[in-house]
Amino acid sequence: MKKKSVDSPLYLRVAQSLEGQIQQGAFRAGDQVPSVRQLSRQHRVSVSTVLQAYFWLESKGWIEARPKSGFYVKMPSTKLNPLPAFRPVQSKPTPVTTSELVADLMQATHGRVQISLGAAFPGPDRMPAHQLNAIIRRISRRSPALSTSHEHSPGSLPLRRQIAKRSVSFGCNFLPEDVTITNGAVEALNLCLRTIAKPGDVIATESPTYFNVLQAIESLGMKAVEIPADSRTGMDLNLLEHALKNYRVRGYIAITNCHNPLGYVLSDDKKRSLVELLHRYDVALIEDDVYGDLAFSPQRPRLAKSFDRAGLVLTCSSFSKTISPGLRLGWVHSERYHAQIAHLKLITSIASPSLSEAVVAEFLESGGYDRHVRNVRIRFEAQVIAFSQAVSKYFPDGTKISRPDGGYVLWIELPKRIDSVVLYHAALKEGISISPGPIFSASGKFRNYIRLNCGIKWSDDVDRAILKLGRLCESQR
Amino acid sequence: MKKKSVDSPLYLRVAQSLEGQIQQGAFRAGDQVPSVRQLSRQHRVSVSTVLQAYFWLESKGWIEARPKSGFYVKMPSTKLNPLPAFRPVQSKPTPVTTSELVADLMQATHGRVQISLGAAFPGPDRMPAHQLNAIIRRISRRSPALSTSHEHSPGSLPLRRQIAKRSVSFGCNFLPEDVTITNGAVEALNLCLRTIAKPGDVIATESPTYFNVLQAIESLGMKAVEIPADSRTGMDLNLLEHALKNYRVRGYIAITNCHNPLGYVLSDDKKRSLVELLHRYDVALIEDDVYGDLAFSPQRPRLAKSFDRAGLVLTCSSFSKTISPGLRLGWVHSERYHAQIAHLKLITSIASPSLSEAVVAEFLESGGYDRHVRNVRIRFEAQVIAFSQAVSKYFPDGTKISRPDGGYVLWIELPKRIDSVVLYHAALKEGISISPGPIFSASGKFRNYIRLNCGIKWSDDVDRAILKLGRLCESQR
Repeated sequence: MKKKSVDSPLYLRVAQSLEGQIQQGAFRAGDQVPSVRQLSRQHRVSVSTVLQAYFWLESKGWIEARPKSGFYVKMPSTKLNPLPAFRPVQSKPTPVTTSELVADLMQATHGRVQISLGAAFPGPDRMPAHQLNAIIRRISRRSPALSTSHEHSPGSLPLRRQIAKRSVSFGCNFLPEDVTITNGAVEALNLCLRTIAKPGDVIATESPTYFNVLQAIESLGMKAVEIPADSRTGMDLNLLEHALKNYRVRGYIAITNCHNPLGYVLSDDKKRSLVELLHRYDVALIEDDVYGDLAFSPQRPRLAKSFDRAGLVLTCSSFSKTISPGLRLGWVHSERYHAQIAHLKLITSIASPSLSEAVVAEFLESGGYDRHVRNVRIRFEAQVIAFSQAVSKYFPDGTKISRPDGGYVLWIELPKRIDSVVLYHAALKEGISISPGPIFSASGKFRNYIRLNCGIKWSDDVDRAILKLGRLCESQR
Repeated sequence: MKKKSVDSPLYLRVAQSLEGQIQQGAFRAGDQVPSVRQLSRQHRVSVSTVLQAYFWLESKGWIEARPKSGFYVKMPSTKLNPLPAFRPVQSKPTPVTTSELVADLMQATHGRVQISLGAAFPGPDRMPAHQLNAIIRRISRRSPALSTSHEHSPGSLPLRRQIAKRSVSFGCNFLPEDVTITNGAVEALNLCLRTIAKPGDVIATESPTYFNVLQAIESLGMKAVEIPADSRTGMDLNLLEHALKNYRVRGYIAITNCHNPLGYVLSDDKKRSLVELLHRYDVALIEDDVYGDLAFSPQRPRLAKSFDRAGLVLTCSSFSKTISPGLRLGWVHSERYHAQIAHLKLITSIASPSLSEAVVAEFLESGGYDRHVRNVRIRFEAQVIAFSQAVSKYFPDGTKISRPDGGYVLWIELPKRIDSVVLYHAALKEGISISPGPIFSASGKFRNYIRLNCGIKWSDDVDRAILKLGRLCESQR
């Protein structure tokens, strides 16, 4: 589309009318604005005038174009809350001590949650239940023996082939024989840790990071050294190098794409630098990519693995965050450690569920998975924006909010006076779950932080829940 | 039925005719003999005469009655091979060193097996695929959200309820809240070991025992002390007490019902003594009951757990050996350690496959599971007898064979000159897999032993495979 010169101020009137609607909340961040054709009919102006209006709104940061989809409302940059602070503090290796807190929280949560903003999972209407059930029934008729047979570790070859094929979109070229199918990414992570390290060994992690990374380190009797990470640019490589120099670090666990909880996608340059740094110290990288397919960018982000020449990267992922946590399917790729990982999987849980393997292989092969992921990641982006706006509106002054590049969690820094564990218990009484900050740190940092799951569909109930959380924050004086 | 006096030798003629057929192999051990009505028609004699004939054959040990089912051919006791020798030798705690051998064997086996006598699994025609697929389709229509949802550890409550209900038949009264659902019994076993012991600790096991018990101990950096077990009466309690007295044993892993590979069901008295002995030393018992439902006795054998007053027993089981290894469903019960086990499961693999949980819960609740198990255990008994007869016929003189009380494996002691690992590789070249003895021992004992899987249906191909194995034994001179 070429920009056409116009001499009338018509486009400005159209644009300002829409700007007013956005300002007054008729359209929220993430909403699609009316189509060019609709607006052209409504204002009785030409299509090119409407396009002019949209370009003007885009230049002011109100809306953005999405390829093949139309224009959507953006959060105006003037209204963005500041980002959570980054504090580049050196840490020493420490035993992880969060399991009791996590266990307590799980116990307390049980059966009391109406609005689930704690665990990071999509709501049911963001999952492809209809398509999966159709495949399940088809397979149970076509291959009845599947329900009673199993495929020993490393698991189903058709599924491993599909994963190898997809790896091209990660910038890699995996071979099926280097892939092991697991019961979700958490099993994959545990297998990797047990492969590269033993009890007492030091593992470097981002701080904050996904709490099950820390739980795995704790339960295996290893120690963690926390590398502070910024919510936009990721881990501090200088601090990582300091740790590599000073401690016998055996591995580094990194969430490189759509970090949980920070939300960043590490830039390609930084991925390359990270891999090179680890190579210099001959330290393995366990790369967790469970949210990689949910980046908001048009292009699927690469893996740090794509810069790995020495075979030091082990990649873990799963289908739990995109299509179903109940299928229990994840995978791990490594050329160098494959035999050890596959054997450890065999003696830890023998095999992965065969029906799930067949269902996911078929969903991938049919193209259904790609269509689903394309569809939901736009919705997750809109949800993240809507949640972010509501937090901005309802939470106390001084609240800082992450701006994720993908996935569906927000990392929120509350004013210092607020204790997120107290907030957790108060919220639970109202039927709302959240994740308190300290579980994302080996040493209980982030006391005034929370993570919010934005995977569930935006609704008035969610709006009220965030309002409620804001009031509970205010009540901590 | 009352025994009726007969003055004619008619019954004897009928009986001897059938005896001849059995001797000449027309009926094999485990086969059902013709019904009373059939034989009465065939020989034109009265029903009571046929019954007389059957009682005569029974008294001679040729056949046996099974309640509500009819008469079956027994293996005549005069033709039984001797039992494998029992050598009550004291052992010291030792690191397990079999994982390389096991990994090699798995690698070698891959894709080359036509007749699978290695891994202990039923053949496809002994699995309830039809029923399970019907349930899978029903659930996918009735509860479509199940395919995309999951139930955090400890897992599905309906399934935990069904397991608690079934525990009455084990002589126990489990509560659903003490049960954790796992990805098969091997995961359950790993969770139990990690709950009661840490790297470096000593675990007592039977010798021989299921190789994945040893693999788990090895991979967790623990040591094993081997307690010799007899193929009829089980572990030697004096040697166990010697180990408890002399080493800091943290737990004992026992397969109490239908031992793998020995086949015994431990007597109730011995189960009680075992539990009392362990209580005296305050040592946990990890009771593996995966074959318990497949005992050949009319009454389902109790668990050692049923004698546990102190909460020292952790029970592991699964549905892999009875209905499907591909569903990946096992469970573990413990009152005392439940919270730790459930938490460890959560941080090791989060959850078990939700569709599998729903399918098994429904199969149990509908009574389908009980019907299936009643049906297959008679077939497995017949298969075990048929395999045993063939081994007896084709293997070298001096071969000794176990007489299992349930399950579907045979433990075979070969003449001393025969190396079972050599035999393994030779058999594999012929497309036949077996399990060589040394993988059943922490220290590589049982070099001249093999385990045979009798879970697959008897056929001419199986007969030829055993003949082939016998010849391969003979060729090792």
